Amino acid sequence: MKFSIERGALLKAVSQAQSVVERRNTIPILANVLIEADGNTVQFRATDLDIEVVDKAPAMVEKAGATTVAAVTLHEIVRKLPDGALVTLSDDGVAGRLTVQAGRSNFNLATLPKEDFPVMASSEYASNFSVGASVLRRLFDKSKFAISTEETRYYLNGVYMHVADGDGGKVLRCVATDGHRLARIDAELPMGAEDMPGVIVPRKTVGEMRKLLDDDEMKIAVSVSETKVRFATPEITLTSKVIDGTFPDYTRVIPSGNTRKLEVDAKDFAAAVDRVATVSSERSRAVKLQLDEDRLILSVNAPDSGAAEEELAVAYADERLEIGFNAKYLLEIASQVDRENAVFLFNSAGDPTLMREGNDTSAVYVVMPMRV
Amino acid sequence: MKFSIERGALLKAVSQAQSVVERRNTIPILANVLIEADGNTVQFRATDLDIEVVDKAPAMVEKAGATTVAAVTLHEIVRKLPDGALVTLSDDGVAGRLTVQAGRSNFNLATLPKEDFPVMASSEYASNFSVGASVLRRLFDKSKFAISTEETRYYLNGVYMHVADGDGGKVLRCVATDGHRLARIDAELPMGAEDMPGVIVPRKTVGEMRKLLDDDEMKIAVSVSETKVRFATPEITLTSKVIDGTFPDYTRVIPSGNTRKLEVDAKDFAAAVDRVATVSSERSRAVKLQLDEDRLILSVNAPDSGAAEEELAVAYADERLEIGFNAKYLLEIASQVDRENAVFLFNSAGDPTLMREGNDTSAVYVVMPMRV
Repeated sequence: MKFSIERGALLKAVSQAQSVVERRNTIPILANVLIEADGNTVQFRATDLDIEVVDKAPAMVEKAGATTVAAVTLHEIVRKLPDGALVTLSDDGVAGRLTVQAGRSNFNLATLPKEDFPVMASSEYASNFSVGASVLRRLFDKSKFAISTEETRYYLNGVYMHVADGDGGKVLRCVATDGHRLARIDAELPMGAEDMPGVIVPRKTVGEMRKLLDDDEMKIAVSVSETKVRFATPEITLTSKVIDGTFPDYTRVIPSGNTRKLEVDAKDFAAAVDRVATVSSERSRAVKLQLDEDRLILSVNAPDSGAAEEELAVAYADERLEIGFNAKYLLEIASQVDRENAVFLFNSAGDPTLMREGNDTSAVYVVMPMRV
Repeated sequence: MKFSIERGALLKAVSQAQSVVERRNTIPILANVLIEADGNTVQFRATDLDIEVVDKAPAMVEKAGATTVAAVTLHEIVRKLPDGALVTLSDDGVAGRLTVQAGRSNFNLATLPKEDFPVMASSEYASNFSVGASVLRRLFDKSKFAISTEETRYYLNGVYMHVADGDGGKVLRCVATDGHRLARIDAELPMGAEDMPGVIVPRKTVGEMRKLLDDDEMKIAVSVSETKVRFATPEITLTSKVIDGTFPDYTRVIPSGNTRKLEVDAKDFAAAVDRVATVSSERSRAVKLQLDEDRLILSVNAPDSGAAEEELAVAYADERLEIGFNAKYLLEIASQVDRENAVFLFNSAGDPTLMREGNDTSAVYVVMPMRV
């Protein structure tokens, strides 16, 4: 194998691949990236056995071939090479070494046989569709904060992507919850997604996927089967196993009868929650909301260290209400709001509260109260 | 006590004070800042018993007085208040609570009696002089990387500031070493510093001091006694105990007979060292320098992971030499060079090597070689 490639193109491809590689591996070859040169393209493939990412880059291939080399080391080397350098990678196929050469720099890296690299089995996908990067980004960015980190509830360790009945017909929907809060984000159903099986996309996949979604104009090819999901741009293909479990029936958690409506400037609200929460160093800081006519008083009481109170002018026309929330949960939900106003719908101090952005029902959040 | 102060001025004063406070304290009052309001000034005082910092800020004092409150909590609150807010701090002197009020925010913080706050005893200083902030910054910034972290050699856990004989007469000198490398930085001797006793300024003090030195035009008032050192601007006074020990005779470590001279572009050199060191993940990565006529080959050999080599065009006219260094030490020293060229003076592969910036002898560095 021998090929030459511009440093910037190489860095982009290698850095996307290496981020999938786990830092601690008991299986040595999982620390490596599989490099395959053929035609006028080089492919970089990395995997943690659950996720596989393949990055393609154009290169001047002098001799086709393939080898595997430590992903992190290769990435570090390329990162440190001067911008604009032409990098030549070659292996002699005998000594088991990959040579990386650029300018007057020469590197000689240990390789492992390409035959040992675990390439993910290809699958039949039940559903294939195309969706804008910005749409996909919104679906996952707004829901991922609610993903559970409890390993015992493994079926909550991801975002449930499925087809659902929205207000105006079928929608592509992402839901995540950890039992304390829930996010439900809808987007227009893309053509060809009608028969998509519902899948739980693991947390790590959601994170890795974000790297494909930076370009707003890009169309992402999505393929879904019962066991796998694939996101692809012309350069990058990310394939991931989905979580083998049943996502709970979240619809029962979303309150429909909440009538007490609070409308508040989302930024002001988040800043005030953040401020009053400062006086308590406890993990599960409870913030008390006291609602009265067009007035909201946020307060925290930590007997040891102090107390804090802040008043906000709001729109609220219902009867007096006192309700408590975990400050962190309130903050996270408030920070999802892109528009000016957050609308809260309460029932009683013991019931789940619903939050949405203005009158938009394509993104709703539920948060459980706590006793204060 | 009651006073009002602009949020920005309060934030600056509190943040400088709170950074001295240790995050984990067995003595509760050490987590607090002592606030003293009098005349038209408020003072914020914090200490870890070794370092004391006092920040002054102008304020509208309605009622003079003093109290102590958790430094980190106060800092966090002020940081989160909106820019430009007028903040009023008051304590009723009975309930042991400090009220912080700004706009519609109200905080109530637990206090501890001001009498319990350990104010550092005032001292007689043997030497008082004034020195430009940029001069002091250079002295400490260029030497602090060589401070030892070995607690058993406590006398090396700081920068030795003293009066010494420089090339052109007496100089103000800072020296730090950990036994593997050494930095010796000289500056013109300020008026009044002639009789200054030599003191070892602790690592933490060096770090805290840097906050006083951001304004190049500022003159810093320095006071030194056998046991304490004080750095002061009109707003901030930092007083620190010095390390009670004898700094070793560093002059014997600095080679004077090294004649083999290498001149190299400092940036190129540092970048090349950084690159070749990538192939080894070991902590004490050895870089080999092979010197030949106007040619330097840097190489690293890590049998398990790979090898790297890079050639640099340099100015070198002496006989062939092979010498090894810890990559981290080489990098740190090369990154001290502000000018274009670093000059290395070698003797043999087993002897300490000297490095300086061009022909400037006011900053010299020594690094011990290692076997490769």
